[in-house]
Amino acid sequence: MSERVLLKLGGSIITDKAADGIIRSDEIDRIAETIAVRKGISLVIVHGAGSCGHPEASRYQVSSGVSVENREGIFFTHMAVRRLNDSIVLALRNAGVEAVGVQPLSACIADKGRLISCEYRSLECMLGLGIVPVLHGDMVMDCTTGACVVSGDQLVRFLSISLGIRRIGLATDVPGVFSDGRVLNEITPKMAGTLVLGDSNHTDVTGGMRGKVNELCQLAEAGIPSDIFHVSRIGDFLDDMPHGGTRVRGQGNV
Amino acid sequence: MSERVLLKLGGSIITDKAADGIIRSDEIDRIAETIAVRKGISLVIVHGAGSCGHPEASRYQVSSGVSVENREGIFFTHMAVRRLNDSIVLALRNAGVEAVGVQPLSACIADKGRLISCEYRSLECMLGLGIVPVLHGDMVMDCTTGACVVSGDQLVRFLSISLGIRRIGLATDVPGVFSDGRVLNEITPKMAGTLVLGDSNHTDVTGGMRGKVNELCQLAEAGIPSDIFHVSRIGDFLDDMPHGGTRVRGQGNV
Repeated sequence: MSERVLLKLGGSIITDKAADGIIRSDEIDRIAETIAVRKGISLVIVHGAGSCGHPEASRYQVSSGVSVENREGIFFTHMAVRRLNDSIVLALRNAGVEAVGVQPLSACIADKGRLISCEYRSLECMLGLGIVPVLHGDMVMDCTTGACVVSGDQLVRFLSISLGIRRIGLATDVPGVFSDGRVLNEITPKMAGTLVLGDSNHTDVTGGMRGKVNELCQLAEAGIPSDIFHVSRIGDFLDDMPHGGTRVRGQGNV
Repeated sequence: MSERVLLKLGGSIITDKAADGIIRSDEIDRIAETIAVRKGISLVIVHGAGSCGHPEASRYQVSSGVSVENREGIFFTHMAVRRLNDSIVLALRNAGVEAVGVQPLSACIADKGRLISCEYRSLECMLGLGIVPVLHGDMVMDCTTGACVVSGDQLVRFLSISLGIRRIGLATDVPGVFSDGRVLNEITPKMAGTLVLGDSNHTDVTGGMRGKVNELCQLAEAGIPSDIFHVSRIGDFLDDMPHGGTRVRGQGNV
């Protein structure tokens, strides 16, 4: 069986973050073609919500908890990001990738804003059939707060451990993680706390680059290295070649 | 907290079983209005696939297991029934019911064709917020056979136990369960095996009336009675009034 790889597509590359609900279909088609020509990779894809879902999440104020008063926000936020998920799955299928969308609202459960469970056995079965499951940041029901926004980055962390992922790639709209105006070649958990990191300029209810790096440092400590690179370098990442971005690694990783 | 009720909408009432993929929107709107005027019921809805999904399941032969050769059937069968689910959720929302669709392909896992797990905690959270979760018969990944068709009736059984459902109603296109040309007032698990039961005339990969009664007898033995009645009597069932159909009950139930 081939090495399992998880590719995260940042919300800022697949949507126009400055314009609510605008899906960047051309970019998605390019990404789908890049993935399609690389056969035999056991791949899981997670994508962010970008401008599909974030505006709804803000409008209904679902990030501070959901009660009977703002419960409508669950449906509208979920449907906005599901529409994006459908677009990505369709683009992948049109390119020849046997992709299937998986909805965190149905598959997962959270507590106090943190993902505590996700039905990963169905993903195991999909990978066994050569299917590429495509998940996304989503509304997830929460045992304490009613419901919460679970970011793609939280899913990356959870699934990487559950599914025995060996390499994680985060495709973004920047060449890597910036600090003091330059791309860092690597970040270790030890140095992460002291860095002043570049962040997104747009609304992002789930924490931006700092959130990403914190999640990835926890994975690096658990022995799973990850790479952050520009969307144009997805092919290099999938080929396990240099991508000009940032590697987040623990003490024992290369 | 109000008593929890599960309503199953048979595939034959919400689709035209003789015509592939035809959704009966007028009937769905009527059902939605009937549900909407009854406030304060803690309700879970499960619906069959009818002619949305069954033809795809047959075409790709997914009911006898899924391999790399017919894996496409998972996507196409799921999307056909998800389209039906979307229609029902939308009709309910338009009528004023805070309905949210939940996808078994994401939420559940099966083994040897039987549902072995479903993320019911998210449904618990939804019910706590007064949301009506709407699930459906679906493709579900299977630890042994790759994937399988899980019927709405299988979901009814699993969720009724997991969610502490007190009353189950199956709305169908017939007045109840027929035997020897008449509607049976009641069925007990003891008598079920000896009955010659009326069945559907149309393609149904999940077992028809015999399958339904077998599932419901298991629930009756576990102390959860259920009612099978004509779709026009949904209001009576929700009001806990006589509905002219069949009650499936265990020895200890009324």
